[in-house]
Amino acid sequence: MIEGHGDDTYRYGHIRLNFSSNIPAYTDLSGLEAHLSRHLSLIRNYPEPSPRSLEAKIAHSIGRNPSQVLVTSGATEAIYLIAQSARTLFPGEGGPTYTVVQPTFSEYESACQMFGLREGADGDICWLCNPNNPTGEVRDEAYVRRLLRHHRLLVIDQSYEDYTQSPLPDLGDLTNVVVLHSMTKRYCIPGLRLGYVTGAPEVIEVLRHCGRPWSVNALAQEAGAWLVEHSPRLLDIGAYLREAQRLRKALNSIPGIEVAPTQTNFMLATIRPRTAAELKAYLAEEHGILIRDASNFRGLSAHHFRVAAQRPEDDDVLVGAIRQYMA
Amino acid sequence: MIEGHGDDTYRYGHIRLNFSSNIPAYTDLSGLEAHLSRHLSLIRNYPEPSPRSLEAKIAHSIGRNPSQVLVTSGATEAIYLIAQSARTLFPGEGGPTYTVVQPTFSEYESACQMFGLREGADGDICWLCNPNNPTGEVRDEAYVRRLLRHHRLLVIDQSYEDYTQSPLPDLGDLTNVVVLHSMTKRYCIPGLRLGYVTGAPEVIEVLRHCGRPWSVNALAQEAGAWLVEHSPRLLDIGAYLREAQRLRKALNSIPGIEVAPTQTNFMLATIRPRTAAELKAYLAEEHGILIRDASNFRGLSAHHFRVAAQRPEDDDVLVGAIRQYMA
Repeated sequence: MIEGHGDDTYRYGHIRLNFSSNIPAYTDLSGLEAHLSRHLSLIRNYPEPSPRSLEAKIAHSIGRNPSQVLVTSGATEAIYLIAQSARTLFPGEGGPTYTVVQPTFSEYESACQMFGLREGADGDICWLCNPNNPTGEVRDEAYVRRLLRHHRLLVIDQSYEDYTQSPLPDLGDLTNVVVLHSMTKRYCIPGLRLGYVTGAPEVIEVLRHCGRPWSVNALAQEAGAWLVEHSPRLLDIGAYLREAQRLRKALNSIPGIEVAPTQTNFMLATIRPRTAAELKAYLAEEHGILIRDASNFRGLSAHHFRVAAQRPEDDDVLVGAIRQYMA
Repeated sequence: MIEGHGDDTYRYGHIRLNFSSNIPAYTDLSGLEAHLSRHLSLIRNYPEPSPRSLEAKIAHSIGRNPSQVLVTSGATEAIYLIAQSARTLFPGEGGPTYTVVQPTFSEYESACQMFGLREGADGDICWLCNPNNPTGEVRDEAYVRRLLRHHRLLVIDQSYEDYTQSPLPDLGDLTNVVVLHSMTKRYCIPGLRLGYVTGAPEVIEVLRHCGRPWSVNALAQEAGAWLVEHSPRLLDIGAYLREAQRLRKALNSIPGIEVAPTQTNFMLATIRPRTAAELKAYLAEEHGILIRDASNFRGLSAHHFRVAAQRPEDDDVLVGAIRQYMA
């Protein structure tokens, strides 16, 4: 794994505004926190080795069968399980191959390399992040159906599905597609590690078989059950996405900063002539602001950085600080 | 993984006494729970992808270098990382082989099989649980040094190291030994999933490289830091182990029950002529008591069960209930 992911607040003692992870930092999680504080004694008992009860609850809430749902310790565990399962899913000489639609989240490639898969243009497995991290782009159904012609399994990471109003591909129940979902992103709880995979029972069964017991801890399982039951509305998504577009426009108005179009709550930008690393260090040290240096995404440069929209007043602070740096 | 581990309280709605997992269920965790309840907002941020801060704290507390410590999501993650790393540690024709000192915890074998390792008498990797689950036996240094002559890497799972007064082997800093430690067991927090591996930096580095980011969630990392700092004394181990011997003697006095000698807090017993599954069902349904049906440990029979000592008054309830069943 690379060590340079976003949300490295733990490296700094004084971050007051965090634009570095792709979630709104200001949502009201008091209901969930109150529930967890009443259930802390769960740390005394083993969780379910395989979180079947939560899988049944999630399956019911999305109108699927529990055999089509696998709960994981964040979408990241799902990524590694899929890479690990590749040899079982696609046995044969030489081992399975993979393709990643770049630039995107680095863990697809890290996971495939860890399990010795080979990269290729028409790989057995194709990884697509949709909406895409870090570009904010949403691919439509036609694009995805074209991909399906070239690959034996399409993995669509829909971690950001709740942060777009662009239509996501509706692929029905295709047996050669698995979809990753992130409760981390949906409910703004990256500290807990919780996600799930949906797919055909025969693929889910292979992934389940590659899992190890107790990978999802008791508090994450309890939080998941509460969230499925209460389904809290944490924000007005329309207003939030409008704020993201306002932030994009404001950043774009700064000479030397260029922000790519986005269909979600985060955006990819370039800074010139200085580097993203320099900007990041300045913002952290001088303003207590954290952004994502995006230079370690494959295909991007030292000039790329990523920010996620926050509250209007917070976004104004970011814009002001970057404007000051560029002046 | 097998689905029949101990502590399956989640299958029952009415368990009042749990003898099925190898930890005392009555310890006072209020200090840790209070600390976590004050830090629930940690769920909002990503944890460290690799828990380096906690590794440094643990290393300092045990007088090791951080390069000799790997924090994992319970000892179970460590077991799977070791099996996954075997091909890197022992490359070559045919792949690595493994040996398990049986009967013992089933996950060593499950993990090796998952990663395609082959079983053999003088395997490259040898797995030893010490004190051993489920027998309660402690192997001495001479035994372990004999094992070292036959294997290239010895994995000693010392999850129960805090629950014995028998001396454990002191192997110094051998490069062909890794030791698994369980904060789950030491601090009675199986719901959080927290453990660590100690070993030579070159082996730890390979294991670290096989890990995925964020496998230890934010609350588990925070709990670990608090526990290392405060090192709470949760029980009088001498009194607890004396109680285990008293429980053993009391169970042994029941006709049809035979309990093997133990050097720790849990013990392996047989019931005849009926089966452990029948006894377990009776105790759960009639008494709200949970025991571990040990029939799925390799080499054991349908008549084996395991219990861990609890408080004297709780142990008396267990003895009374089993006596009633056998009458």
